[in-house]
Amino acid sequence: MVVSAAATKEAAGLGALDRLLAATDAEMQKVNALILKRADSHVEMVPELARYLIEAGGKRLRPMLTVAAALLFGRATGAQTNYAAAVEFMHNATLLHDDVVDESDMRRGRPAARMIWGNQASVLVGDFLLGQAFLMMVETGKLDALGVLAKAATIIAEGEVFQLAKARDLTATTADYDQVIRAKTATLFQAAAEVGAMAGGADEAGRAAMRDYGMELGLAFQLVDDVLDYRGESGAMGKNSGDDLREGKMTLPVIMALADANPAEREIIVASLGKPDASETALAQVAAIMNRHNALSRTVDQAHAHVRAARAALAGLPESEMKTILSDIAEFYVSRAY
Amino acid sequence: MVVSAAATKEAAGLGALDRLLAATDAEMQKVNALILKRADSHVEMVPELARYLIEAGGKRLRPMLTVAAALLFGRATGAQTNYAAAVEFMHNATLLHDDVVDESDMRRGRPAARMIWGNQASVLVGDFLLGQAFLMMVETGKLDALGVLAKAATIIAEGEVFQLAKARDLTATTADYDQVIRAKTATLFQAAAEVGAMAGGADEAGRAAMRDYGMELGLAFQLVDDVLDYRGESGAMGKNSGDDLREGKMTLPVIMALADANPAEREIIVASLGKPDASETALAQVAAIMNRHNALSRTVDQAHAHVRAARAALAGLPESEMKTILSDIAEFYVSRAY
Repeated sequence: MVVSAAATKEAAGLGALDRLLAATDAEMQKVNALILKRADSHVEMVPELARYLIEAGGKRLRPMLTVAAALLFGRATGAQTNYAAAVEFMHNATLLHDDVVDESDMRRGRPAARMIWGNQASVLVGDFLLGQAFLMMVETGKLDALGVLAKAATIIAEGEVFQLAKARDLTATTADYDQVIRAKTATLFQAAAEVGAMAGGADEAGRAAMRDYGMELGLAFQLVDDVLDYRGESGAMGKNSGDDLREGKMTLPVIMALADANPAEREIIVASLGKPDASETALAQVAAIMNRHNALSRTVDQAHAHVRAARAALAGLPESEMKTILSDIAEFYVSRAY
Repeated sequence: MVVSAAATKEAAGLGALDRLLAATDAEMQKVNALILKRADSHVEMVPELARYLIEAGGKRLRPMLTVAAALLFGRATGAQTNYAAAVEFMHNATLLHDDVVDESDMRRGRPAARMIWGNQASVLVGDFLLGQAFLMMVETGKLDALGVLAKAATIIAEGEVFQLAKARDLTATTADYDQVIRAKTATLFQAAAEVGAMAGGADEAGRAAMRDYGMELGLAFQLVDDVLDYRGESGAMGKNSGDDLREGKMTLPVIMALADANPAEREIIVASLGKPDASETALAQVAAIMNRHNALSRTVDQAHAHVRAARAALAGLPESEMKTILSDIAEFYVSRAY
């Protein structure tokens, strides 16, 4: 039996996830305890809604990145617990607001919180989590790390607004897309890695390396997400596949497909873009057009390029088991695209 | 001609506003310049929407409170400019999210931002303003003041969720109402006054005095708002009068009226409570029931009690022109109720 190069890579990637989970396990238990504690409130609906979302799990990739970065530099002071929990709260606040903005029905494989508690509570509990995130940062007494997350919060919101402004815009460019995903997704990966490095006592070079690593990892992550939305075994992301097209999101696959489509193909794409009730058949037609023009595989190629850049960002750091794990884990997250 | 006691009080109050405006004018020009600057973004929709709301004005009462508190203690360091702008951004973020939550059509006498840019952009630009608020606080390098605002952000969100949970709840108590307005409204007044005192170099006693003053002023402010929603010359708040009833908000006037209403009156109130399409006639009937049971005047009485408490909070501070202004201005804000 011949083992393909891709399969070997994927196996290495899966191994990397197990190694990352093991290497961060003790720290992540502290983070998870803090997350549950700080989602509490005397106003019952707050922890009900927050814990519904938080306990649905998700991969906790962002706080794990913070913890891993802190451990990488070996002088972790303990601040990483608060930093990591704050990063996860910022992420969950964004999810709550995004689901309202996108009118999403599903999140993490369950009905979105807004389907149970309503849009109103989702907006407000998101605000609560954002406030708690900053409060946890304040409690560490570290103003510089707080500044990194506050700056990230503004950039993420700008990115979301820009994405909204470009929805259903047939003139959206690959540069627009790049700007959107840098801001709305990769900025939090970047901040998560950077504050982790700060908690670990990294010098400026180490901090810059982790900043670059986080940004590139985040870009790869979002590119793969945007492929999965079309390639989707349904529920791969715990959301409905085809949501991006129905919401009119101008992701790279659709921008590339539109650029190369003939008039008939273009018409098919446009007929479903931003149409909440586009049929499964229509979605399948659009996916077929994307495959005809290699829009999905070319998007994966770009993800691979960012994985290479993420690994390259680590090059100047001293060799260690954690460095190897972080290098391999980037590969793993692209392996999801297959 | 006999001048009534109430008219004299109101005249004194109006004088207080002019004196407050004059005393804070130079500082508020800096604050307003910073507010406009920090509402900017390369994503066009962000400053468009933010400035639409910000330039509609509002009284800028909260940042003015921050500036006044800083000047009161006489050792203002300059941090009050960032603090005041951050307070106003937090307030505007709350307004944007509230209008989405309440499905409000009007704000500050104009169509609410969500009616022009949509709910989605309103949520996201609110997030942007919240991020900018924290970033401006970080830039002052003062972690303790940042902590005051971060804590306030969580309490405000909790208060809004609690209000939402109590909407249309006929068993809501005056204690519930007190909890709601302390959290959702008075906490920001309290934080605005407290960080102002901190910027002004207040000692712990001065800081505590301003914290109490801000809380009591905020409670009086919200009580009057909740009266005006029923007494409403339309547009007194730049919102539609009767909105609270239509949204099912359990404010003190409605809680008091329900407690004292006979079965027929109760039925009339319940028929309109939380009914977005309740008619003007129905609203007038409810207002008449409230007046029959003195629910509005008793609410104003409570506002007066908080004004007295606000003035009492200042008692231990050295006499100064600014102290007199702050004492008188509390009176002014209750005079709006007539």
